[in-house]
Amino acid sequence: MVSQMPARRLGVAIVGLGGAVATTAAAGLEMIRRGAVDLSGLPLAESTQAGLAPYQNIALAGWDLYPDDLASACRQHGVLAPAELDLVRTELESVRPWPAIGNVKFCRNVAGREGANLTSMRDQIDSLKDDLKRFKADSGVDSLVVVHLASTERLVDITLPQFATPEAFEMALDANDDEIGPAMLYAYAAITSGIPYGNFTPSVSADIPALKELARRNGVPIAGKDGKTGQTLVKTVIAPALRGRALHVDGWYSTNILGNRDGLALDDPSSLASKLDTKGSVLDSILGYKVENHKVFIHYYPPRGDDKEAWDNIDFTGFLGHRMQMKINFLCKDSILAAPLVIEIARCLDLAKQRGHGGVLEELGVFFKAPQMTNGAEPEHAWPEQERQFRDWLDNGTGRAEKSLKAAAASLADVG
Amino acid sequence: MVSQMPARRLGVAIVGLGGAVATTAAAGLEMIRRGAVDLSGLPLAESTQAGLAPYQNIALAGWDLYPDDLASACRQHGVLAPAELDLVRTELESVRPWPAIGNVKFCRNVAGREGANLTSMRDQIDSLKDDLKRFKADSGVDSLVVVHLASTERLVDITLPQFATPEAFEMALDANDDEIGPAMLYAYAAITSGIPYGNFTPSVSADIPALKELARRNGVPIAGKDGKTGQTLVKTVIAPALRGRALHVDGWYSTNILGNRDGLALDDPSSLASKLDTKGSVLDSILGYKVENHKVFIHYYPPRGDDKEAWDNIDFTGFLGHRMQMKINFLCKDSILAAPLVIEIARCLDLAKQRGHGGVLEELGVFFKAPQMTNGAEPEHAWPEQERQFRDWLDNGTGRAEKSLKAAAASLADVG
Amino acid sequence: MVSQMPARRLGVAIVGLGGAVATTAAAGLEMIRRGAVDLSGLPLAESTQAGLAPYQNIALAGWDLYPDDLASACRQHGVLAPAELDLVRTELESVRPWPAIGNVKFCRNVAGREGANLTSMRDQIDSLKDDLKRFKADSGVDSLVVVHLASTERLVDITLPQFATPEAFEMALDANDDEIGPAMLYAYAAITSGIPYGNFTPSVSADIPALKELARRNGVPIAGKDGKTGQTLVKTVIAPALRGRALHVDGWYSTNILGNRDGLALDDPSSLASKLDTKGSVLDSILGYKVENHKVFIHYYPPRGDDKEAWDNIDFTGFLGHRMQMKINFLCKDSILAAPLVIEIARCLDLAKQRGHGGVLEELGVFFKAPQMTNGAEPEHAWPEQERQFRDWLDNGTGRAEKSLKAAAASLADVG
Amino acid sequence: MVSQMPARRLGVAIVGLGGAVATTAAAGLEMIRRGAVDLSGLPLAESTQAGLAPYQNIALAGWDLYPDDLASACRQHGVLAPAELDLVRTELESVRPWPAIGNVKFCRNVAGREGANLTSMRDQIDSLKDDLKRFKADSGVDSLVVVHLASTERLVDITLPQFATPEAFEMALDANDDEIGPAMLYAYAAITSGIPYGNFTPSVSADIPALKELARRNGVPIAGKDGKTGQTLVKTVIAPALRGRALHVDGWYSTNILGNRDGLALDDPSSLASKLDTKGSVLDSILGYKVENHKVFIHYYPPRGDDKEAWDNIDFTGFLGHRMQMKINFLCKDSILAAPLVIEIARCLDLAKQRGHGGVLEELGVFFKAPQMTNGAEPEHAWPEQERQFRDWLDNGTGRAEKSLKAAAASLADVG
Repeated sequence: MVSQMPARRLGVAIVGLGGAVATTAAAGLEMIRRGAVDLSGLPLAESTQAGLAPYQNIALAGWDLYPDDLASACRQHGVLAPAELDLVRTELESVRPWPAIGNVKFCRNVAGREGANLTSMRDQIDSLKDDLKRFKADSGVDSLVVVHLASTERLVDITLPQFATPEAFEMALDANDDEIGPAMLYAYAAITSGIPYGNFTPSVSADIPALKELARRNGVPIAGKDGKTGQTLVKTVIAPALRGRALHVDGWYSTNILGNRDGLALDDPSSLASKLDTKGSVLDSILGYKVENHKVFIHYYPPRGDDKEAWDNIDFTGFLGHRMQMKINFLCKDSILAAPLVIEIARCLDLAKQRGHGGVLEELGVFFKAPQMTNGAEPEHAWPEQERQFRDWLDNGTGRAEKSLKAAAASLADVG
Repeated sequence: MVSQMPARRLGVAIVGLGGAVATTAAAGLEMIRRGAVDLSGLPLAESTQAGLAPYQNIALAGWDLYPDDLASACRQHGVLAPAELDLVRTELESVRPWPAIGNVKFCRNVAGREGANLTSMRDQIDSLKDDLKRFKADSGVDSLVVVHLASTERLVDITLPQFATPEAFEMALDANDDEIGPAMLYAYAAITSGIPYGNFTPSVSADIPALKELARRNGVPIAGKDGKTGQTLVKTVIAPALRGRALHVDGWYSTNILGNRDGLALDDPSSLASKLDTKGSVLDSILGYKVENHKVFIHYYPPRGDDKEAWDNIDFTGFLGHRMQMKINFLCKDSILAAPLVIEIARCLDLAKQRGHGGVLEELGVFFKAPQMTNGAEPEHAWPEQERQFRDWLDNGTGRAEKSLKAAAASLADVG
Repeated sequence: MVSQMPARRLGVAIVGLGGAVATTAAAGLEMIRRGAVDLSGLPLAESTQAGLAPYQNIALAGWDLYPDDLASACRQHGVLAPAELDLVRTELESVRPWPAIGNVKFCRNVAGREGANLTSMRDQIDSLKDDLKRFKADSGVDSLVVVHLASTERLVDITLPQFATPEAFEMALDANDDEIGPAMLYAYAAITSGIPYGNFTPSVSADIPALKELARRNGVPIAGKDGKTGQTLVKTVIAPALRGRALHVDGWYSTNILGNRDGLALDDPSSLASKLDTKGSVLDSILGYKVENHKVFIHYYPPRGDDKEAWDNIDFTGFLGHRMQMKINFLCKDSILAAPLVIEIARCLDLAKQRGHGGVLEELGVFFKAPQMTNGAEPEHAWPEQERQFRDWLDNGTGRAEKSLKAAAASLADVG
Repeated sequence: MVSQMPARRLGVAIVGLGGAVATTAAAGLEMIRRGAVDLSGLPLAESTQAGLAPYQNIALAGWDLYPDDLASACRQHGVLAPAELDLVRTELESVRPWPAIGNVKFCRNVAGREGANLTSMRDQIDSLKDDLKRFKADSGVDSLVVVHLASTERLVDITLPQFATPEAFEMALDANDDEIGPAMLYAYAAITSGIPYGNFTPSVSADIPALKELARRNGVPIAGKDGKTGQTLVKTVIAPALRGRALHVDGWYSTNILGNRDGLALDDPSSLASKLDTKGSVLDSILGYKVENHKVFIHYYPPRGDDKEAWDNIDFTGFLGHRMQMKINFLCKDSILAAPLVIEIARCLDLAKQRGHGGVLEELGVFFKAPQMTNGAEPEHAWPEQERQFRDWLDNGTGRAEKSLKAAAASLADVG
């Protein structure tokens, strides 16, 4: 007689738990638990891969600058209709975020209480690690993952010397270095706790060399950055086909209007710079040449709330130099697209941990606008190839990284 | 010392030589020969695969119901500006189509002279084969390919018994069977002359079982059908991404407006039926479920001439049942998109012939709305997978067909 | 000392009371009565014109083929969210339509019970008149108006001799003439009861000469037809500006997707013909020339329910023959746009009655796709001029009709 | 026997003669003279109003910072196809602009030679007046008009004391006041020469009180400012209809992409400020309330050259608070829309001069984004009302100004 393995239980600690994406994820998981909705929009709903925690077994908790309980926060974002929220109100009311560590130097437009009176970075990190330990103990889950969803921080230069190695970074932490933003502290707390870390925002976080190396040493999978949900997803779907048909892109004008707290944060030019940075290089990478007139704009437009709209205009040249245009108007819902990806990223990071992976999990690139790479390699941006690599990794544990190893082995063999 | 192979010379005989696509291809090849344009829009421009005839070495000829020389035909279609046409007017003026075999029972809206006074199908076929022999001899090319570009014929039932085997089809030819359309006669003439045959139209042609089998027996590569240039291309690019993200398509409304001779032909409901037939099943195949509200319309709209416009509206459902929309407006140029594909299909069929392939070349599916398959298998419609299979075949001579063989071999081995 | 007039109370009897537009109007009026909503979308909300019945004082009743109470009908249409409907559920539940007189020969796709067992048209008319009398008595309103909102009937030839005069029509009624559709019977019942009648549908109704004359003789204002809510409204707003700038329209392609019961009815080609007939001539009339390529399509597309989407593409030529395009994508809500117009039409017809107007009230043309005219004159279609005439009539009791009279008087004087 | 009046001959001196709009106008007038084109796009082509100079009798000349002849300038802008330009090349080659007076403090992005070595404003003005005198004498026209088409200058505060009265302005001129931009100098030169002046740009020019008063005193008609050609035209056409239907605008997002010299100039934020200033207030004025989320963006996007594209998204609320959207995509040609308006404005200003009008000609408001008013009154922005006032003025010499006078007279009478 075969004894059945008890299903895996996963705790996800979210930075920015009171935000639109996180509260949508929280409400959604509760609705799934109650059988009130089907699994639409969850890319791995049909996967039978062992090691993925069932959706019903995922517990959410996390930090926020705002102290509101999740029902109250969820109501404010207006993503869910009142009738939907009512289904899970009791459960959401019982969850309150832990105090977050904010830093107005890194994200201005979204104010909130400063996280406790923690005067040093080391104190802040200790506090975060305590939160994680307590979460694990209280919830009784088998394992944890941290996912970053907080508002975009200002752009940081990742080539600074204090970010180059774990040792340099430790010293910078000791010195409360002004260049270290909150997103790095969360990543550091997770990695040094042995907990996988995913960065769904454009903020500079575990993508500094110091933290990537630390993750590798500690055997902790990390992934990022900046969730690929709307316009950039479409861009990386369309551009490969233009390349396949040898249609030369002369210009690509992209504009976004959105009205949620994210949009407000991006109304601060320094946060916007981070965002545009991750959006910018995608096209050139896929097409193999510099698109002279690639323009990307994001505008705060309150009438839509969480509903987001992207308008793209593509000018391209075909046979005999003749010119054509394509226009794409995407009326999407930001949090509805993002929340299921956050859930899947957490499940995959947990799976990678079980598989013994440490360092950047490049095969999750399909979920990100600026896929993190182990070293300075250029990431794959084309969605079709990303999807193939991801599904290969999911099903077989092989993907890009393994392929690189094999290629390296093969070339060694050739030399031999 | 290595002697250099002289570059391959290829003759392409086109059914519908006076049409917008063919005259654009003819003018384009002349412009390329003169160095007047670059190779934009030609998907294999960067391929270094040996065996592909250089663009400069391709000679075009073919049949048409209208007797006008190519310069005159090209001018009427209005695809090229007068100044562009002027560059190659002399060359195009020197080419006149051979008389085509038409049949008003199969294509009503586009009138033309009936091809000579050929009273039997056998006489018509002999005449076509003579044309091909003369073309080869006169042009001095190394090999020929036939590509079908004529206006869409009425829908035919390919399961009729007279289409089931080469033998049945031969008997039907002898009997001048009314169900045999001109497009089948061209295909038969090519295949029995040992000449590869590509069908860029939705007409029923070499996709009847009899002709597929005949091509296999004769070692002649064939491919089709219905060039994937505009809206369907976009559809097969977008739909896989929606599937990848588990976004459920509730409805997909597609409408096309076009004003060229093709549009006029499609204004005849029986020709339109053929077209919609090839467009229809694409979506369900990619998504893996029946899209209840997939609507496709084509409307003749003269103001645009050859400029074609597609408007797509996609309704889909994401996480927690929330609904979103995407709208795509494609302002394309029909012949500018199609002509380079015709050229590449001809080059690939010629390459396949050199590689010894006989029967349906499934790996060209990326170029077609309704990819022909050897047997009744469901074709791959998702552009990303089609592109991958095509590039594999091009570079390595392996792709879908070979994979199937290997899979078959493997399962045999398992059994063993 | 002046005694204050008690506010006017108006009863509106609607043909098609259970439909999406009527139930939206009914729910809306209840919500206004309770102060649950503001007066958005009601064009005369700011008018202080005496004689207009206050919104709070309007009672709705009417006929339908389906017997469901209004709350139940409203729920089925899905125009209002459940939470909105809940506000007025009790009131709507208390209203049930009177049995309608249907005729499958005139409207096929929307089935329903045949109205009672009324074998002759005279019996049917008597029954309708009894309904109206009972409504007036029971509700205690000061006056009644009938508005037609039922599904579109098949196209009828209004030049038939039996429609030419009141006398001919009476005889045709006696003979139960097959060419007389239900919409004419409702109009006849209203007019002969001295009750103003508005036709918000494309069906042929009070626009036959016989009924226009009868309305004039009886001193009953009538107006119609086919509410101008979405795409045609936009068309009549944009076209005058194109004319004003001398931009020549080469083609105007309009397509609509909608998924409510109206859309289903229009899926029957004979009903669609009525609709396209009223939509067609608008452009030529405004522009002053025949637009060769004016195409209008309506497609039933269930995913949207009552949400309607129109897509227009306009091709036009400007200075030196250069061509430009405009595309308009209107994501509207059919019943939300229509319901307030129905309310205002009813109020205006009641005002006209008080002002002593009999026959066609041409000044309401701004609300209709095919404005009814007293005699065979070409109606004004340009929205700016319609709006001006309507506001003049509303404020001063003068408008188009009076202007025509003055012009006639002036030319008489000239002659003199 | 009646002797026929010889047809009026009009000279138009353009500021920015080498620009895209002016060269298009120049080429167009030549093409009209030769009968090579019809009168499409000219709003007054069908007017029979006496006093309007025939298109054939209009001579163009003017100033520019670039010395190129008009054929060469026209070629650079790429508005006309080479074949079109060829028709009038000889005539355009014979016209060279007079040296313009530029000022880098007022318009940065478009460099050019500084106009001669004119060290004082008085010298510059004298030079401009000499140019006008010479033009009149050499061309033999009956009268002149000046139209300003040069690139947008930086925003200027029109409430400065030196702009308040003719006397203050004269003193500021003497002092070479830094706040006086080139556009004011051109206006001053025209007005003090008795020549009507139109401002088709957003630059501050004759709209300062000093110059309006000077024009009134000198009996010179002036009009402006900022030609209403594309997106703003559409906005002022659509918004009145939304108001008419009581649809409340919650947000209106407008973005423009254009790639000509104008677009480059607007890439300088200080020039852009002038432009957005004239675009901004239009909506609130028409709708009668403050639109909280009216956003207007202009982006330089070179792939399009002179082809301009506007995308508008309108969010609005209707009955019962339900929300709808409209999206308008205008693919227009900037100079093709603007050039005929410039020609008509010149003809109308000349007509006004003949009619004895002095000061602001308010009835030309239909042609401008920011219609100039005599005093501080709020201009009419709604296109339908503007068009009506303009046509009244054209046909009857009465319009807005006359109506104001009558209203004033009437209220005096009432008082009396």
